Amino acid sequence: MAVYKLHYFDNPRRGHAELSRLILSQAGVQFEDVRFPHSEWPNMKPTTPFGQVPILEVNGQMLAQSNAIARYLARQHGLAGKDEWEQAQTDMYIENINDLLNAVAVPFVEKDPAKQKEMYGKFMTETIAFHVVAVEKQLKKNNTGYLVGDRLTAADLAYYALFSDFIEVKFGGAFLKDAPLLKSLLVRVRTSPNVKKWIDFRNSKYYPDGNE
Amino acid sequence: MAVYKLHYFDNPRRGHAELSRLILSQAGVQFEDVRFPHSEWPNMKPTTPFGQVPILEVNGQMLAQSNAIARYLARQHGLAGKDEWEQAQTDMYIENINDLLNAVAVPFVEKDPAKQKEMYGKFMTETIAFHVVAVEKQLKKNNTGYLVGDRLTAADLAYYALFSDFIEVKFGGAFLKDAPLLKSLLVRVRTSPNVKKWIDFRNSKYYPDGNE
Repeated sequence: MAVYKLHYFDNPRRGHAELSRLILSQAGVQFEDVRFPHSEWPNMKPTTPFGQVPILEVNGQMLAQSNAIARYLARQHGLAGKDEWEQAQTDMYIENINDLLNAVAVPFVEKDPAKQKEMYGKFMTETIAFHVVAVEKQLKKNNTGYLVGDRLTAADLAYYALFSDFIEVKFGGAFLKDAPLLKSLLVRVRTSPNVKKWIDFRNSKYYPDGNE
Repeated sequence: MAVYKLHYFDNPRRGHAELSRLILSQAGVQFEDVRFPHSEWPNMKPTTPFGQVPILEVNGQMLAQSNAIARYLARQHGLAGKDEWEQAQTDMYIENINDLLNAVAVPFVEKDPAKQKEMYGKFMTETIAFHVVAVEKQLKKNNTGYLVGDRLTAADLAYYALFSDFIEVKFGGAFLKDAPLLKSLLVRVRTSPNVKKWIDFRNSKYYPDGNE
């Protein structure tokens, strides 16, 4: 049995390793959730293949790139879709979320608060509003309560990872008001037993006072 | 047998669909290389699942996201690595290239020529120089003349797709002067018969005067 060690910064606490943590949790697989302070990064960076984290360590071998890690873990543990076409669809949704993550990173690093607010506003009313309509349409078409096939995959976990951050931390839930299928998907993911166990554990460990 | 149609803008001529074209060409698979002018985009955009291209159409079904398409095609045609771990490594290298593509897109859209030049310079002396050292080290470690396993994969094609653009169009080849293994990998890809056939065809069709 593979022994997984997932290495990432201890801050931000969700960030680029969270999808892999959700996949392993949903699959009921034990893993070592190694988090290190930014102060250790200069020593650690030269030990990583490309100067980046997260890194997945599997029996001493290293894998870089958050979504390569996530897809590998999803395939290993039955969360990547049940055939090659479903796997491609799951991959596509993970890539969509990656695009949104890259897009929201631009206002995130903006120093001027007024400009930042404007950029976040534009991100929500243009990029996110457009995307939510598109995903809602796909959910209606698929008609199973999940993004891909008829069961939970890493695609659903990827949307949950980013959109729960939007709802709970950054923007509130109003942007989902006309997307009942997406909204109920996020609830379905959040309340599935193994995800619930992980989120409850994570929240009690890292946000014991309820504030993230 | 699947019939592939790959839809993308006719300009830029390499861009986000080129890796998939290289994969299909290397695999010796026929595909319809559908290129449309930007003027058609407003009509076409609502017909795509997420308002983006490239789109792969397979027997009437649509797949979005350039790298999801590339990985799907690579798996279908034996260019994704021979086991799950190699597949993860191939994925990782494609993600590396995606990061570099996103990074070089920032100076690419900069309007001020002086500022753009400075940004391109920084990209080459920091991001690319660091990455080239890291990849050279991995090639030395793998010691097969390829990035993953002992044969050509989509990982090698991804590095070729971006780095040949850097060498031939944007920056010249000096950035590879201390990376003999990477340099010879790029030549190996370029001269493998099916890739050569594709590139020669592409160049004669789109750059008949030799200038890209």
